[in-house]
Amino acid sequence: MTIYGRHQGTTDHEVFEVMYTNEKEAGMPVIAFIPFKPVNPKTRLSCVLEKEEREAFARMMLADVVEAVSGAGCMPKIISTEPYACRGTTVEVIPGGLNETLNALLAGQKGPVLIIMADLPLATPQAVMQLISSRREIAIAPGRGGGTNAIYLSKGSSYRVDYYGASFLKHAAIAQERGLTCEVIDSFRLHTDVDEKEDLVELLIHGRGRSRQYLESLGFSLSIEKGRVGVVRRGLP
Amino acid sequence: MTIYGRHQGTTDHEVFEVMYTNEKEAGMPVIAFIPFKPVNPKTRLSCVLEKEEREAFARMMLADVVEAVSGAGCMPKIISTEPYACRGTTVEVIPGGLNETLNALLAGQKGPVLIIMADLPLATPQAVMQLISSRREIAIAPGRGGGTNAIYLSKGSSYRVDYYGASFLKHAAIAQERGLTCEVIDSFRLHTDVDEKEDLVELLIHGRGRSRQYLESLGFSLSIEKGRVGVVRRGLP
Repeated sequence: MTIYGRHQGTTDHEVFEVMYTNEKEAGMPVIAFIPFKPVNPKTRLSCVLEKEEREAFARMMLADVVEAVSGAGCMPKIISTEPYACRGTTVEVIPGGLNETLNALLAGQKGPVLIIMADLPLATPQAVMQLISSRREIAIAPGRGGGTNAIYLSKGSSYRVDYYGASFLKHAAIAQERGLTCEVIDSFRLHTDVDEKEDLVELLIHGRGRSRQYLESLGFSLSIEKGRVGVVRRGLP
Repeated sequence: MTIYGRHQGTTDHEVFEVMYTNEKEAGMPVIAFIPFKPVNPKTRLSCVLEKEEREAFARMMLADVVEAVSGAGCMPKIISTEPYACRGTTVEVIPGGLNETLNALLAGQKGPVLIIMADLPLATPQAVMQLISSRREIAIAPGRGGGTNAIYLSKGSSYRVDYYGASFLKHAAIAQERGLTCEVIDSFRLHTDVDEKEDLVELLIHGRGRSRQYLESLGFSLSIEKGRVGVVRRGLP
Protein backbone atom coordinates (compact mmCIF):
# COMPACT_ATOMS: atom_id res chain seq x y z
CA MET A 1 0.00 0.00 0.00
CA THR A 2 1.19 3.48 -0.81
CA ILE A 3 -0.35 6.60 0.62
CA TYR A 4 0.57 10.12 -0.35
CA GLY A 5 -1.02 12.90 1.65
CA ARG A 6 -0.90 16.66 1.74
CA HIS A 7 -2.42 18.45 4.68
CA GLN A 8 -3.64 21.98 4.09
CA GLY A 9 -4.86 23.49 7.31
CA THR A 10 -8.12 23.16 9.13
CA THR A 11 -10.80 24.55 6.89
CA ASP A 12 -14.09 22.71 6.84
CA HIS A 13 -13.29 21.07 3.53
CA GLU A 14 -9.63 20.31 3.46
CA VAL A 15 -7.76 18.97 0.50
CA PHE A 16 -6.08 15.64 0.91
CA GLU A 17 -4.48 14.13 -2.11
CA VAL A 18 -4.26 10.45 -1.73
CA MET A 19 -3.30 7.59 -3.93
CA TYR A 20 -3.99 4.07 -2.87
CA THR A 21 -2.55 1.04 -4.45
CA ASN A 22 -3.98 -2.10 -2.89
CA GLU A 23 -7.48 -0.70 -2.61
CA LYS A 24 -10.20 -3.09 -1.66
CA GLU A 25 -10.47 -5.47 -4.59
CA ALA A 26 -8.97 -2.69 -6.71
CA GLY A 27 -12.33 -0.94 -6.42
CA MET A 28 -13.33 2.23 -4.65
CA PRO A 29 -11.34 3.06 -1.54
CA VAL A 30 -13.25 2.67 1.71
CA ILE A 31 -13.95 6.07 3.25
CA ALA A 32 -13.61 5.84 7.02
CA PHE A 33 -15.71 8.38 8.90
CA ILE A 34 -14.39 8.90 12.42
CA PRO A 35 -16.68 11.03 14.60
CA PHE A 36 -14.69 13.04 17.10
CA LYS A 37 -15.47 15.37 19.99
CA PRO A 38 -12.31 17.33 20.85
CA VAL A 39 -13.73 19.47 23.69
CA ASN A 40 -14.34 17.98 27.15
CA PRO A 41 -14.49 14.36 25.97
CA LYS A 42 -14.50 11.18 28.03
CA THR A 43 -16.05 12.68 31.13
CA ARG A 44 -16.28 9.26 32.80
CA LEU A 45 -12.49 9.39 33.05
CA SER A 46 -12.66 12.58 35.13
CA CYS A 47 -11.78 10.55 38.23
CA VAL A 48 -8.24 10.03 36.95
CA LEU A 49 -7.71 12.65 34.21
CA GLU A 50 -8.08 16.44 34.21
CA LYS A 51 -10.02 18.04 31.36
CA GLU A 52 -6.90 18.96 29.36
CA GLU A 53 -5.53 15.47 29.87
CA ARG A 54 -8.78 13.93 28.68
CA GLU A 55 -8.63 16.10 25.58
CA ALA A 56 -5.03 15.09 24.89
CA PHE A 57 -5.88 11.44 25.57
CA ALA A 58 -8.83 11.58 23.16
CA ARG A 59 -6.51 13.00 20.47
CA MET A 60 -4.03 10.17 21.05
CA MET A 61 -6.75 7.55 20.79
CA LEU A 62 -7.96 9.20 17.59
CA ALA A 63 -4.42 9.09 16.20
CA ASP A 64 -4.26 5.35 16.96
CA VAL A 65 -7.56 4.81 15.15
CA VAL A 66 -6.43 6.88 12.16
CA GLU A 67 -3.26 4.78 11.96
CA ALA A 68 -5.23 1.53 12.08
CA VAL A 69 -7.69 2.53 9.35
CA SER A 70 -4.94 4.00 7.19
CA GLY A 71 -2.93 0.83 7.62
CA ALA A 72 -5.95 -1.14 6.40
CA GLY A 73 -6.04 0.97 3.24
CA CYS A 74 -9.02 3.12 4.18
CA MET A 75 -9.22 6.88 3.61
CA PRO A 76 -9.79 8.40 7.07
CA LYS A 77 -12.06 11.41 7.38
CA ILE A 78 -12.51 12.91 10.80
CA ILE A 79 -15.97 14.33 11.49
CA SER A 80 -15.42 16.76 14.32
CA THR A 81 -17.95 18.71 16.36
CA GLU A 82 -15.41 21.56 16.69
CA PRO A 83 -12.52 22.87 14.58
CA TYR A 84 -9.64 20.42 14.81
CA ALA A 85 -6.42 19.72 12.92
CA CYS A 86 -4.99 16.25 12.35
CA ARG A 87 -1.89 15.88 10.22
CA GLY A 88 -2.39 13.82 7.10
CA THR A 89 -6.12 13.44 7.53
CA THR A 90 -9.06 15.48 6.33
CA VAL A 91 -11.25 16.97 9.01
CA GLU A 92 -14.81 18.08 8.41
CA VAL A 93 -16.35 20.21 11.13
CA ILE A 94 -20.04 19.47 11.59
CA PRO A 95 -21.66 20.56 14.82
CA GLY A 96 -24.77 18.55 15.60
CA GLY A 97 -26.04 15.15 16.61
CA LEU A 98 -24.11 12.01 15.72
CA ASN A 99 -26.95 10.27 13.92
CA GLU A 100 -28.08 13.32 11.95
CA THR A 101 -24.53 14.13 10.89
CA LEU A 102 -23.65 10.59 9.82
CA ASN A 103 -26.93 9.94 8.02
CA ALA A 104 -26.54 13.15 6.02
CA LEU A 105 -23.03 12.05 5.05
CA LEU A 106 -24.10 8.52 4.19
CA ALA A 107 -26.82 9.74 1.83
CA GLY A 108 -24.14 10.96 -0.57
CA GLN A 109 -21.96 7.85 -0.44
CA LYS A 110 -22.51 5.33 -3.18
CA GLY A 111 -19.27 3.55 -2.41
CA PRO A 112 -18.07 1.58 0.61
CA VAL A 113 -18.00 3.35 3.96
CA LEU A 114 -16.56 2.53 7.33
CA ILE A 115 -17.78 4.34 10.43
CA ILE A 116 -15.45 3.79 13.32
CA MET A 117 -15.43 5.37 16.76
CA ALA A 118 -12.44 7.44 17.90
CA ASP A 119 -12.06 5.67 21.26
CA LEU A 120 -10.78 2.32 20.03
CA PRO A 121 -7.05 2.55 20.74
CA LEU A 122 -6.58 -1.22 20.47
CA ALA A 123 -7.65 -1.19 16.82
CA THR A 124 -5.09 -2.61 14.42
CA PRO A 125 -4.96 -2.63 10.63
CA GLN A 126 -5.62 -6.39 10.77
CA ALA A 127 -8.80 -5.92 12.81
CA VAL A 128 -10.03 -3.19 10.45
CA MET A 129 -9.16 -5.37 7.45
CA GLN A 130 -11.26 -8.17 8.92
CA LEU A 131 -14.18 -5.75 9.06
CA ILE A 132 -13.88 -4.16 5.62
CA SER A 133 -13.13 -7.44 3.87
CA SER A 134 -16.51 -8.84 4.88
CA ARG A 135 -18.37 -10.39 1.98
CA ARG A 136 -21.69 -9.31 3.46
CA GLU A 137 -23.34 -5.99 2.63
CA ILE A 138 -22.87 -4.82 6.22
CA ALA A 139 -20.42 -5.83 8.92
CA ILE A 140 -20.67 -4.70 12.53
CA ALA A 141 -18.00 -4.77 15.20
CA PRO A 142 -20.04 -4.63 18.40
CA GLY A 143 -18.87 -2.68 21.42
CA ARG A 144 -19.11 -3.79 24.99
CA GLY A 145 -22.54 -3.08 26.44
CA GLY A 146 -24.56 -3.28 23.24
CA GLY A 147 -22.87 -0.50 21.31
CA THR A 148 -21.62 -0.33 17.75
CA ASN A 149 -17.92 0.43 17.66
CA ALA A 150 -17.41 0.09 13.94
CA ILE A 151 -19.69 -0.62 11.03
CA TYR A 152 -18.78 -1.34 7.44
CA LEU A 153 -21.28 -0.56 4.71
CA SER A 154 -20.53 -1.87 1.23
CA LYS A 155 -22.76 0.93 -0.08
CA GLY A 156 -23.05 3.88 2.29
CA SER A 157 -26.26 5.34 0.91
CA SER A 158 -28.15 2.07 1.35
CA TYR A 159 -28.14 2.42 5.12
CA ARG A 160 -28.92 4.74 8.00
CA VAL A 161 -27.36 4.59 11.44
CA ASP A 162 -29.02 4.81 14.85
CA TYR A 163 -26.43 5.17 17.62
CA TYR A 164 -26.91 5.28 21.42
CA GLY A 165 -28.45 2.62 23.64
CA ALA A 166 -28.32 -0.92 22.29
CA SER A 167 -27.24 0.32 18.87
CA PHE A 168 -25.82 -3.05 17.90
CA LEU A 169 -29.31 -4.55 18.02
CA LYS A 170 -30.78 -1.52 16.25
CA HIS A 171 -28.18 -1.73 13.49
CA ALA A 172 -28.74 -5.45 13.00
CA ALA A 173 -32.50 -4.77 12.81
CA ILE A 174 -32.06 -1.97 10.26
CA ALA A 175 -30.01 -4.33 8.08
CA GLN A 176 -32.76 -6.93 8.29
CA GLU A 177 -35.53 -4.42 7.52
CA ARG A 178 -33.66 -3.34 4.41
CA GLY A 179 -32.87 -6.88 3.31
CA LEU A 180 -29.13 -6.36 3.68
CA THR A 181 -26.87 -9.26 4.63
CA CYS A 182 -25.00 -8.61 7.85
CA GLU A 183 -21.93 -10.08 9.55
CA VAL A 184 -20.87 -9.68 13.18
CA ILE A 185 -17.10 -9.21 13.46
CA ASP A 186 -15.43 -11.11 16.29
CA SER A 187 -12.68 -8.77 17.50
CA PHE A 188 -11.88 -7.73 21.05
CA ARG A 189 -9.67 -4.97 19.66
CA LEU A 190 -12.71 -3.37 18.07
CA HIS A 191 -15.00 -4.41 20.95
CA THR A 192 -12.98 -2.49 23.53
CA ASP A 193 -13.94 1.17 23.67
CA VAL A 194 -12.28 3.22 26.37
CA ASP A 195 -14.78 5.06 28.55
CA GLU A 196 -13.97 4.24 32.16
CA LYS A 197 -11.01 3.75 34.43
CA GLU A 198 -11.29 -0.05 34.19
CA ASP A 199 -10.93 0.17 30.42
CA LEU A 200 -7.45 1.65 30.84
CA VAL A 201 -6.33 -1.81 31.98
CA GLU A 202 -6.99 -3.11 28.49
CA LEU A 203 -5.00 -0.28 26.94
CA LEU A 204 -2.00 -0.78 29.24
CA ILE A 205 -2.01 -4.50 28.46
CA HIS A 206 -2.87 -4.62 24.77
CA GLY A 207 -2.18 -1.12 23.43
CA ARG A 208 0.75 -0.46 21.14
CA GLY A 209 0.23 3.13 20.08
CA ARG A 210 0.31 6.70 21.24
CA SER A 211 -2.54 6.60 23.71
CA ARG A 212 -0.81 3.91 25.72
CA GLN A 213 2.43 5.90 25.65
CA TYR A 214 0.52 8.96 26.78
CA LEU A 215 -1.02 7.15 29.73
CA GLU A 216 2.39 5.85 30.75
CA SER A 217 3.87 9.35 30.45
CA LEU A 218 1.23 10.52 32.93
CA GLY A 219 2.36 7.88 35.40
CA PHE A 220 -0.27 5.22 34.83
CA SER A 221 0.63 1.58 35.39
CA LEU A 222 -1.08 -1.70 36.14
CA SER A 223 -1.81 -2.64 39.72
CA ILE A 224 -2.71 -6.07 41.01
CA GLU A 225 -4.59 -6.37 44.27
CA LYS A 226 -6.23 -9.55 45.52
CA GLY A 227 -5.85 -11.07 42.07
CA ARG A 228 -7.74 -8.22 40.37
CA VAL A 229 -5.94 -6.11 37.80
CA GLY A 230 -6.49 -2.36 37.92
CA VAL A 231 -4.61 0.83 37.13
CA VAL A 232 -2.90 3.33 39.38
CA ARG A 233 -1.53 6.76 38.64
CA ARG A 234 1.72 7.81 40.27
CA GLY A 235 1.10 10.53 42.82
CA LEU A 236 -2.65 9.92 42.97
CA PRO A 237 -4.43 7.73 45.54
CA MET B 1 -16.33 -33.98 11.32
CA THR B 2 -17.80 -37.06 12.94
CA ILE B 3 -17.82 -37.65 16.65
CA TYR B 4 -18.97 -40.83 18.32
CA GLY B 5 -19.18 -40.78 22.10
CA ARG B 6 -20.20 -43.15 24.83
CA HIS B 7 -20.67 -41.78 28.29
CA GLN B 8 -20.17 -44.16 31.19
CA GLY B 9 -20.97 -42.43 34.45
CA THR B 10 -18.92 -40.16 36.62
CA THR B 11 -15.91 -42.12 37.78
CA ASP B 12 -12.65 -40.25 37.96
CA HIS B 13 -11.43 -41.72 34.69
CA GLU B 14 -14.35 -42.16 32.40
CA VAL B 15 -14.24 -43.90 29.09
CA PHE B 16 -15.11 -41.87 26.07
CA GLU B 17 -14.75 -43.47 22.70
CA VAL B 18 -14.23 -40.87 20.10
CA MET B 19 -13.40 -40.89 16.45
CA TYR B 20 -12.52 -37.70 14.70
CA THR B 21 -12.39 -37.18 11.01
CA ASN B 22 -11.23 -33.69 10.13
CA GLU B 23 -8.67 -33.60 12.91
CA LYS B 24 -6.28 -30.71 12.93
CA GLU B 25 -4.17 -31.17 9.82
CA ALA B 26 -5.02 -34.87 10.02
CA GLY B 27 -2.67 -35.04 13.01
CA MET B 28 -3.37 -35.57 16.68
CA PRO B 29 -6.72 -34.27 17.90
CA VAL B 30 -6.53 -31.23 20.14
CA ILE B 31 -7.43 -32.17 23.70
CA ALA B 32 -9.44 -29.36 25.29
CA PHE B 33 -9.11 -29.17 29.06
CA ILE B 34 -12.02 -27.27 30.59
CA PRO B 35 -11.55 -26.55 34.30
CA PHE B 36 -14.90 -26.51 36.10
CA LYS B 37 -16.11 -25.76 39.60
CA PRO B 38 -19.65 -27.12 39.97
CA VAL B 39 -20.26 -26.15 43.61
CA ASN B 40 -21.03 -22.54 44.56
CA PRO B 41 -19.53 -21.00 41.41
CA LYS B 42 -19.76 -17.41 40.15
CA THR B 43 -20.26 -15.81 43.55
CA ARG B 44 -20.07 -12.32 42.01
CA LEU B 45 -23.45 -13.08 40.44
CA SER B 46 -25.00 -13.61 43.88
CA CYS B 47 -26.76 -10.24 43.55
CA VAL B 48 -29.05 -11.65 40.87
CA LEU B 49 -28.82 -15.45 41.14
CA GLU B 50 -29.36 -17.86 44.04
CA LYS B 51 -26.71 -20.51 44.69
CA GLU B 52 -28.65 -23.26 42.89
CA GLU B 53 -29.27 -20.93 39.96
CA ARG B 54 -25.59 -20.04 39.79
CA GLU B 55 -24.74 -23.74 39.71
CA ALA B 56 -27.25 -24.40 36.93
CA PHE B 57 -26.03 -21.33 35.04
CA ALA B 58 -22.40 -22.50 35.32
CA ARG B 59 -23.44 -25.90 33.90
CA MET B 60 -25.20 -24.19 30.97
CA MET B 61 -22.15 -22.05 30.22
CA LEU B 62 -19.99 -25.18 30.38
CA ALA B 63 -22.33 -26.92 27.93
CA ASP B 64 -21.98 -23.96 25.54
CA VAL B 65 -18.18 -24.18 25.78
CA VAL B 66 -18.21 -27.94 25.24
CA GLU B 67 -20.34 -27.44 22.14
CA ALA B 68 -17.98 -24.79 20.77
CA VAL B 69 -14.82 -26.85 21.27
CA SER B 70 -16.49 -30.02 19.95
CA GLY B 71 -17.69 -28.08 16.93
CA ALA B 72 -14.10 -27.01 16.31
CA GLY B 73 -13.01 -30.66 16.29
CA CYS B 74 -11.40 -30.70 19.73
CA MET B 75 -11.81 -33.49 22.26
CA PRO B 76 -13.30 -31.85 25.36
CA LYS B 77 -12.20 -33.08 28.77
CA ILE B 78 -13.76 -31.45 31.79
CA ILE B 79 -11.46 -31.12 34.78
CA SER B 80 -13.80 -30.77 37.73
CA THR B 81 -13.05 -29.98 41.35
CA GLU B 82 -16.00 -32.18 42.38
CA PRO B 83 -17.78 -35.22 40.90
CA TYR B 84 -19.79 -34.10 37.90
CA ALA B 85 -21.50 -35.75 34.94
CA CYS B 86 -21.67 -34.24 31.47
CA ARG B 87 -23.24 -36.23 28.68
CA GLY B 88 -20.89 -37.04 25.85
CA THR B 89 -17.80 -35.62 27.53
CA THR B 90 -15.20 -37.17 29.78
CA VAL B 91 -14.91 -35.69 33.24
CA GLU B 92 -11.84 -36.04 35.41
CA VAL B 93 -12.29 -35.11 39.05
CA ILE B 94 -9.19 -33.47 40.48
CA PRO B 95 -9.58 -31.45 43.65
CA GLY B 96 -6.83 -28.90 44.05
CA GLY B 97 -5.44 -25.66 42.70
CA LEU B 98 -5.97 -24.71 39.08
CA ASN B 99 -2.29 -24.24 38.25
CA GLU B 100 -1.10 -27.40 39.99
CA THR B 101 -3.81 -29.48 38.37
CA LEU B 102 -3.26 -28.15 34.86
CA ASN B 103 0.53 -28.30 35.02
CA ALA B 104 0.40 -31.93 36.15
CA LEU B 105 -1.88 -32.71 33.22
CA LEU B 106 0.24 -30.77 30.72
CA ALA B 107 3.39 -32.66 31.70
CA GLY B 108 1.96 -35.79 30.11
CA GLN B 109 0.74 -34.19 26.90
CA LYS B 110 3.08 -34.40 23.95
CA GLY B 111 0.36 -33.41 21.52
CA PRO B 112 -1.64 -30.22 21.05
CA VAL B 113 -3.68 -28.98 24.00
CA LEU B 114 -6.30 -26.32 24.42
CA ILE B 115 -7.13 -24.98 27.88
CA ILE B 116 -10.37 -23.06 27.84
CA MET B 117 -12.36 -21.59 30.70
CA ALA B 118 -15.91 -22.80 31.37
CA ASP B 119 -17.42 -19.30 31.61
CA LEU B 120 -17.17 -18.30 27.96
CA PRO B 121 -20.73 -18.77 26.73
CA LEU B 122 -20.15 -16.62 23.64
CA ALA B 123 -17.53 -19.04 22.32
CA THR B 124 -18.28 -20.42 18.87
CA PRO B 125 -16.60 -23.20 16.89
CA GLN B 126 -15.25 -20.50 14.56
CA ALA B 127 -13.59 -18.62 17.42
CA VAL B 128 -12.06 -21.82 18.77
CA MET B 129 -10.90 -22.76 15.27
CA GLN B 130 -9.16 -19.42 14.97
CA LEU B 131 -7.28 -20.23 18.17
CA ILE B 132 -6.27 -23.81 17.44
CA SER B 133 -5.36 -23.10 13.83
CA SER B 134 -2.62 -20.71 14.92
CA ARG B 135 0.69 -21.38 13.20
CA ARG B 136 2.57 -20.26 16.30
CA GLU B 137 3.61 -22.64 19.06
CA ILE B 138 1.27 -20.91 21.49
CA ALA B 139 -1.85 -18.86 20.99
CA ILE B 140 -3.59 -16.92 23.74
CA ALA B 141 -7.12 -15.55 23.79
CA PRO B 142 -6.92 -12.85 26.47
CA GLY B 143 -9.77 -12.21 28.84
CA ARG B 144 -11.00 -8.84 29.95
CA GLY B 145 -8.92 -7.48 32.81
CA GLY B 146 -5.64 -9.20 32.00
CA GLY B 147 -6.81 -12.79 32.26
CA THR B 148 -6.24 -15.77 29.98
CA ASN B 149 -9.52 -17.16 28.75
CA ALA B 150 -8.14 -19.75 26.39
CA ILE B 151 -4.67 -20.88 25.49
CA TYR B 152 -3.59 -23.22 22.72
CA LEU B 153 -0.34 -25.14 23.08
CA SER B 154 0.95 -26.96 20.03
CA LYS B 155 2.82 -29.23 22.45
CA GLY B 156 1.28 -29.36 25.90
CA SER B 157 4.35 -30.60 27.79
CA SER B 158 6.49 -27.72 26.51
CA TYR B 159 4.64 -25.23 28.68
CA ARG B 160 3.42 -24.47 32.17
CA VAL B 161 0.50 -22.24 33.07
CA ASP B 162 0.26 -19.53 35.71
CA TYR B 163 -3.31 -18.34 36.16
CA TYR B 164 -4.72 -15.55 38.38
CA GLY B 165 -3.85 -11.86 38.30
CA ALA B 166 -2.53 -10.57 35.00
CA SER B 167 -2.11 -14.09 33.66
CA PHE B 168 -2.11 -12.91 30.06
CA LEU B 169 1.15 -11.06 30.69
CA LYS B 170 2.56 -13.99 32.67
CA HIS B 171 1.68 -16.43 29.91
CA ALA B 172 3.23 -14.24 27.24
CA ALA B 173 6.37 -13.98 29.39
CA ILE B 174 6.57 -17.76 29.92
CA ALA B 175 6.37 -18.26 26.15
CA GLN B 176 9.19 -15.78 25.66
CA GLU B 177 11.37 -17.36 28.39
CA ARG B 178 10.97 -20.73 26.72
CA GLY B 179 11.62 -19.41 23.22
CA LEU B 180 8.13 -20.32 22.02
CA THR B 181 6.43 -18.26 19.35
CA CYS B 182 3.18 -16.76 20.58
CA GLU B 183 0.09 -15.29 18.93
CA VAL B 184 -2.61 -13.16 20.55
CA ILE B 185 -6.05 -14.11 19.27
CA ASP B 186 -8.39 -11.21 18.54
CA SER B 187 -11.83 -12.48 19.54
CA PHE B 188 -14.42 -10.76 21.70
CA ARG B 189 -16.28 -14.05 21.96
CA LEU B 190 -13.31 -15.58 23.76
CA HIS B 191 -12.48 -12.29 25.54
CA THR B 192 -15.85 -12.13 27.28
CA ASP B 193 -15.93 -14.21 30.45
CA VAL B 194 -19.09 -13.95 32.51
CA ASP B 195 -18.40 -13.00 36.12
CA GLU B 196 -20.60 -10.04 36.97
CA LYS B 197 -24.08 -8.74 36.36
CA GLU B 198 -22.86 -6.38 33.62
CA ASP B 199 -21.44 -9.34 31.71
CA LEU B 200 -24.94 -10.77 31.36
CA VAL B 201 -25.65 -7.94 28.91
CA GLU B 202 -23.15 -9.49 26.50
CA LEU B 203 -24.76 -12.90 26.84
CA LEU B 204 -28.29 -11.58 26.23
CA ILE B 205 -27.07 -9.72 23.15
CA HIS B 206 -24.56 -12.13 21.60
CA GLY B 207 -25.31 -15.53 23.14
CA ARG B 208 -26.88 -18.27 21.07
CA GLY B 209 -26.75 -21.26 23.38
CA ARG B 210 -28.19 -22.78 26.50
CA SER B 211 -26.89 -20.28 29.02
CA ARG B 212 -28.71 -17.46 27.28
CA GLN B 213 -31.89 -19.54 27.16
CA TYR B 214 -31.49 -20.30 30.84
CA LEU B 215 -31.16 -16.61 31.74
CA GLU B 216 -34.25 -15.81 29.70
CA SER B 217 -36.17 -18.65 31.38
CA LEU B 218 -35.35 -17.01 34.73
CA GLY B 219 -36.88 -13.76 33.53
CA PHE B 220 -33.75 -11.83 32.56
CA SER B 221 -33.96 -9.27 29.80
CA LEU B 222 -32.11 -6.20 28.61
CA SER B 223 -32.95 -2.82 30.07
CA ILE B 224 -32.02 0.54 28.66
CA GLU B 225 -31.88 3.53 30.97
CA LYS B 226 -30.33 6.86 30.07
CA GLY B 227 -28.70 5.28 27.07
CA ARG B 228 -26.93 2.61 29.15
CA VAL B 229 -27.74 -1.02 28.55
CA GLY B 230 -28.18 -3.27 31.57
CA VAL B 231 -30.13 -6.34 32.60
CA VAL B 232 -33.23 -6.71 34.74
CA ARG B 233 -34.83 -9.80 36.17
CA ARG B 234 -38.62 -10.02 36.20
CA GLY B 235 -39.92 -9.82 39.74
CA LEU B 236 -36.67 -8.46 41.15
CA PRO B 237 -35.91 -4.78 41.71
